[in-house]
Amino acid sequence: MLSIRPAVRSDAVLLNSLIHEFADFYKFPVSISEEQLLSDGFGPEPRFQALIAEFSGQPAGYALFFDYYASFHGGAIFLEDLFVRTQFRGTGAGKALLARVAATGVERGCRRIMLNVLSSNDPAVGFYRKLGAGFLDDWKVVCFEGNSFGALLTSDRATTAD
Amino acid sequence: MLSIRPAVRSDAVLLNSLIHEFADFYKFPVSISEEQLLSDGFGPEPRFQALIAEFSGQPAGYALFFDYYASFHGGAIFLEDLFVRTQFRGTGAGKALLARVAATGVERGCRRIMLNVLSSNDPAVGFYRKLGAGFLDDWKVVCFEGNSFGALLTSDRATTAD
Repeated sequence: MLSIRPAVRSDAVLLNSLIHEFADFYKFPVSISEEQLLSDGFGPEPRFQALIAEFSGQPAGYALFFDYYASFHGGAIFLEDLFVRTQFRGTGAGKALLARVAATGVERGCRRIMLNVLSSNDPAVGFYRKLGAGFLDDWKVVCFEGNSFGALLTSDRATTAD
Repeated sequence: MLSIRPAVRSDAVLLNSLIHEFADFYKFPVSISEEQLLSDGFGPEPRFQALIAEFSGQPAGYALFFDYYASFHGGAIFLEDLFVRTQFRGTGAGKALLARVAATGVERGCRRIMLNVLSSNDPAVGFYRKLGAGFLDDWKVVCFEGNSFGALLTSDRATTAD
């Protein structure tokens, strides 16, 4: 049987392991640790929430999300990760996690979920498309990190010093 | 002279007006109101932060952002809006706003800014590219809202009722 439950403090080990499994799946670098997850997600001011899916008592996947703010419309949820372990694909865990994320959104007064999907991940793209999600193909995802972030900082110091 | 300052409660009228101006620029629907911005951004638990750029005392633009959580790396900032009014383009307001967003990130312990840009907005794409931003072209922006969000909710109730 499939069940979905909120991740709690004692799930930090499991969550860290699932996040690393997800990153490995994408072959993406990952620097998160159990300690950081504990402090960021399960302290006095949590920066994210997570759900764990279990199938017959085994951890089958997870969802990690946080509040988003759509300036044109108001509050929303950003779904950072939705991952189901390979051996649990087809159990309905992904859809059940996503449905519970939506329900959490409603509890917070919003009816909108934003997420990014890797376009080469055909099963994921197909999954979201089948559920009727809108694909905002006109938008590009942009990131400042490393050198480009450092350059912004330098420019701020220059402005402040003027 | 250009200056950047955090938006405060009494800026809700101005912020609402700038957001509507930004939405009009894109010709996007917008349902946000001054009342909602007051309650979401300037109450006891702000869902976003905003900066106002002023040029010679005139409002020139704004940035609206909030905390993001990159599960593979930790905290980040999501820059939802960066807008400079047409008549203030070329004053450096956009770069100064972005630099101050980066500085705010550092105060919160993170060195990463995520944002979405409309691919047809050549000046904006060029602006971010010139500043060295990474374009994550492999990613698609996906959204559940309206009917697709409602369908997720129905599916959650069905699971819970099982």
